[in-house]
Amino acid sequence: MASDWRAQGEAKRLYILGCIPKKWRLTSPVPPASELRDVTEYIRQFLSPREIEITETDAVDIVAQTSSGHWTAVEVAEAFCHRAALAHQLVSCLHEFFVEATLEGAAKLDAYLAKHKTPVGPLHGLPISLKDQFHVKGVETTMGYIGWMGTFQGRRNDPRHKNEESELVRELRNLGAVLYCKTSVPTTLMAGETANNIIGYTQNPRSRLLSSGGSSGGEGALIALRGSPGGFGSDIGGSVRSPSGYNALYGLLPSPGRVPYQGAANSIDGQSTILSVIGPIAPSAQSLELLFKVVLSQQPWYHDPLVLEIPWRDEHVRETRALIERARPGKPSLAFGVFSYDGVARIHPPIARGFELVERTLLRLGHKMIRWNPPSHARAHEIVAKTFDMDDGTDLRHHLGLSGEPRPKQVIVCDSRPELKASEIAALNVAKREYEKEYMDYWNSTAALTETGRPVDGVLCPIAPHAAAIPEHYRSLGYTSFVNLLGYTSVVIPVTFADKEVDVRAASRLPSNSEQFIDWEYDADTYHGAPVGLQIVGRRLQEKMLTLAHHIGEEVARDARRV
Amino acid sequence: MASDWRAQGEAKRLYILGCIPKKWRLTSPVPPASELRDVTEYIRQFLSPREIEITETDAVDIVAQTSSGHWTAVEVAEAFCHRAALAHQLVSCLHEFFVEATLEGAAKLDAYLAKHKTPVGPLHGLPISLKDQFHVKGVETTMGYIGWMGTFQGRRNDPRHKNEESELVRELRNLGAVLYCKTSVPTTLMAGETANNIIGYTQNPRSRLLSSGGSSGGEGALIALRGSPGGFGSDIGGSVRSPSGYNALYGLLPSPGRVPYQGAANSIDGQSTILSVIGPIAPSAQSLELLFKVVLSQQPWYHDPLVLEIPWRDEHVRETRALIERARPGKPSLAFGVFSYDGVARIHPPIARGFELVERTLLRLGHKMIRWNPPSHARAHEIVAKTFDMDDGTDLRHHLGLSGEPRPKQVIVCDSRPELKASEIAALNVAKREYEKEYMDYWNSTAALTETGRPVDGVLCPIAPHAAAIPEHYRSLGYTSFVNLLGYTSVVIPVTFADKEVDVRAASRLPSNSEQFIDWEYDADTYHGAPVGLQIVGRRLQEKMLTLAHHIGEEVARDARRV
Repeated sequence: MASDWRAQGEAKRLYILGCIPKKWRLTSPVPPASELRDVTEYIRQFLSPREIEITETDAVDIVAQTSSGHWTAVEVAEAFCHRAALAHQLVSCLHEFFVEATLEGAAKLDAYLAKHKTPVGPLHGLPISLKDQFHVKGVETTMGYIGWMGTFQGRRNDPRHKNEESELVRELRNLGAVLYCKTSVPTTLMAGETANNIIGYTQNPRSRLLSSGGSSGGEGALIALRGSPGGFGSDIGGSVRSPSGYNALYGLLPSPGRVPYQGAANSIDGQSTILSVIGPIAPSAQSLELLFKVVLSQQPWYHDPLVLEIPWRDEHVRETRALIERARPGKPSLAFGVFSYDGVARIHPPIARGFELVERTLLRLGHKMIRWNPPSHARAHEIVAKTFDMDDGTDLRHHLGLSGEPRPKQVIVCDSRPELKASEIAALNVAKREYEKEYMDYWNSTAALTETGRPVDGVLCPIAPHAAAIPEHYRSLGYTSFVNLLGYTSVVIPVTFADKEVDVRAASRLPSNSEQFIDWEYDADTYHGAPVGLQIVGRRLQEKMLTLAHHIGEEVARDARRV
Repeated sequence: MASDWRAQGEAKRLYILGCIPKKWRLTSPVPPASELRDVTEYIRQFLSPREIEITETDAVDIVAQTSSGHWTAVEVAEAFCHRAALAHQLVSCLHEFFVEATLEGAAKLDAYLAKHKTPVGPLHGLPISLKDQFHVKGVETTMGYIGWMGTFQGRRNDPRHKNEESELVRELRNLGAVLYCKTSVPTTLMAGETANNIIGYTQNPRSRLLSSGGSSGGEGALIALRGSPGGFGSDIGGSVRSPSGYNALYGLLPSPGRVPYQGAANSIDGQSTILSVIGPIAPSAQSLELLFKVVLSQQPWYHDPLVLEIPWRDEHVRETRALIERARPGKPSLAFGVFSYDGVARIHPPIARGFELVERTLLRLGHKMIRWNPPSHARAHEIVAKTFDMDDGTDLRHHLGLSGEPRPKQVIVCDSRPELKASEIAALNVAKREYEKEYMDYWNSTAALTETGRPVDGVLCPIAPHAAAIPEHYRSLGYTSFVNLLGYTSVVIPVTFADKEVDVRAASRLPSNSEQFIDWEYDADTYHGAPVGLQIVGRRLQEKMLTLAHHIGEEVARDARRV
């Protein structure tokens, strides 16, 4: 059995490589990570100027080109396929790659446009990458499990194997998107790094000594290398946001009930205390907005029982834009909570500098900032841990057991406690609701401090105490998982990069106020070059957070260019 | 212990009677139910013409009077208090009654209006009754449990005892409502009749041989006797709808996430597979609309983590009204599913006649009707039963055990299976979601049959196989509980009354197609005079169902007057 899973994993690894057309294979060895950490520039040498132009164009602009016929869908698809193939050879980020079917589909889009003089939909010809949880016809879904190979979610002889499409996939096709690959995930999804017994470890393209994050780490790595203009991951504790932050990307965690999960594979499916949520990752906030908005235009509430009938509310966005324009120093129209320490895990110097940069920008813009003093985050961590562990790892064990493969070290689910019983889960749900209520009341209470007449419009918050994690050193999901617990909306904003010259070990900015506090070792050299992202967290169901993230991200970038 | 709970129950029963001012106590005995079934007329002899005028006015019109100062809040409150006091003496429907505090509060409203020339809010001076799950300052909440007397939800020495107000109560006060009583519920809430060891049995005012329904049976009985112009109950399997239907009232089951449950007591709190939902009951659809709409105007999503930011959508209502006006025979603009047999429990002759009446009206109006053939309702029943029983009665046993009182016979929760474990609950949640998805797809598929270009706008459905239940003979919650499972919206419409001369035993209209089918004994005399209501069920989160219910209810009543 042991050799069996190894052989199967190796077979799939070779199959994935085999999906790459010969012309796109790297023929000379890539320098080791110790010599060449960052491969984001390195990858460009294998691409034509035209391919570079296409693949480094923002999704919104790609669609403008493909919808008007200035670029063909085929040409765009081919450029991204080429770059994705290179990306995979550099950092191991693909689980499936179907170039031929993709180019055929793209050709049909071009033919449609030529014939009807109108695009198929608002994503006409836009390549979209998908985390390997989504079912796409013609290829399989493993979610990193060797035991799922050749099956439908681990079920042998299930006719849905390679025949099913998830609801989101159906909608993306309706919208005119081009699907071409599925990206790597950690086995079980319950990990902050991306590693499995098939593709091995998905490295961070900015520093291959570091993690690309998880569980949507394949998305993060691929998009960072511009092998995709944007894709969809999922997040139950940080799985969209850590890959976004670790890879200098924008990422959206919507509240549960917006993007359809229907028909996608999942871990511990049916656990309903904290729901996993699907969200887009892309190099810009406007790409996130495009991807989120067009999915809502498909009225997913008629096709997924967990989606709420809440369309994109443009009026919320317009109001937010008006507030942004009205802001003047001394006359704030927007206010933000600043939350740089959760009482549990101290942030590293690069993250602290990220805060300083954003705070400086917010100050310049005339936005009000207040220190964020929410209900105990240690309590939130406890509720999250109990939730993730509630089935004692039964689901994970079952799926690992299908092949006998070992559990990856990075998996955070604890399986040494008994399963929770119905009455214990009910008590947990009550504890969660009480925490949510307290948080809500605290948020409301800030109206007295903001000078805007409203509570804060968002909370600036780390993604993790550290920049992109050192392999097997991802430890704290507290800064991301409390947002899942609350069902809030969060957008990751890329801010800066760790710099060993600047981000030296500094005296803690904050006094210790908790016995639980963690103050990890920080090594400036190891993190050098790693992206620093922060999240802007908003209340439940707030698409206007995208507007705020766009605003803050642009202004932070403007200030960075000035320096 | 045994005598203890009896004595405590009796003490509370006497306390409630003691809350009734002497002048409102009945001095001569009421004829027994066997001689006088219907007390809806009987009650009027104890009231002045002015009191009758006030208490038989619709909520919408009461507010018009009290907001303009034509009627004082005090006069209106006093009239309803008087009538509620009589109602309780006739059918045992109150758990708390606080006349003095109410009249003081009403006097303040009058003073406010006199001073500011504007009402406190859109419910200025409107009396509202509340099921005994809501916490109101100054009185206790027992939810029928003797063990909760003198405690906060069973917790002794909890400072919240008599000091807490539920979120909905806070909002109702903001809106200018007058709170004056809390109404009876069955111990545990998990019953389709209303009986407990405090007030005994809440009888149906139309026929005191029958049940007023449950678990919001006190609301149903009180409003049927016009001791309240409208109130709030809760519903996890039919608890707003059976009391509405059994009492010739309108009742709204909104989808979860509209009306705040925050800070109200509940049974098996934290069970999150199927959520209990709060909804209004009133004699008219326009009253329901008023009560629902003004609660949303309070933006409860900022005060209850389970409420969704979905305001009242007037555009949905306007669209629906336009469709109603456009309907012509042969050119349907609206379409309804007709669902008179769920494959499990056959409806009795009075319910079958109710269907005929409504179908005739819909036909006259030019609305399209299609037979409803949804996914198996037996499967829905199974999911509901597993959900209700998941904690093996642990919660109920705990609260009954506080006093040692026996479990009322009507409680439907089974406590002879082991508690479900986390992995089993996850599987149950998946089964539920799959059922919801199938139902959703079926609903979508009806677009091919309706001739309106859309799927059906609602489904006409029984509330139970029978009219108001015979005590201890409430058996099937299938016609109501599937709506809770689906999270759909439902409005109960009063249609007619059982008539022993007309509703004689008829040959079954439908062939048996299931081994599970139930075809209960029907005795025309027993049900004589019992109200027959039907529900109009709509998809998730659809306040426009109120518009449809208003339309159908009015037109059915018009046809009834014509006959």
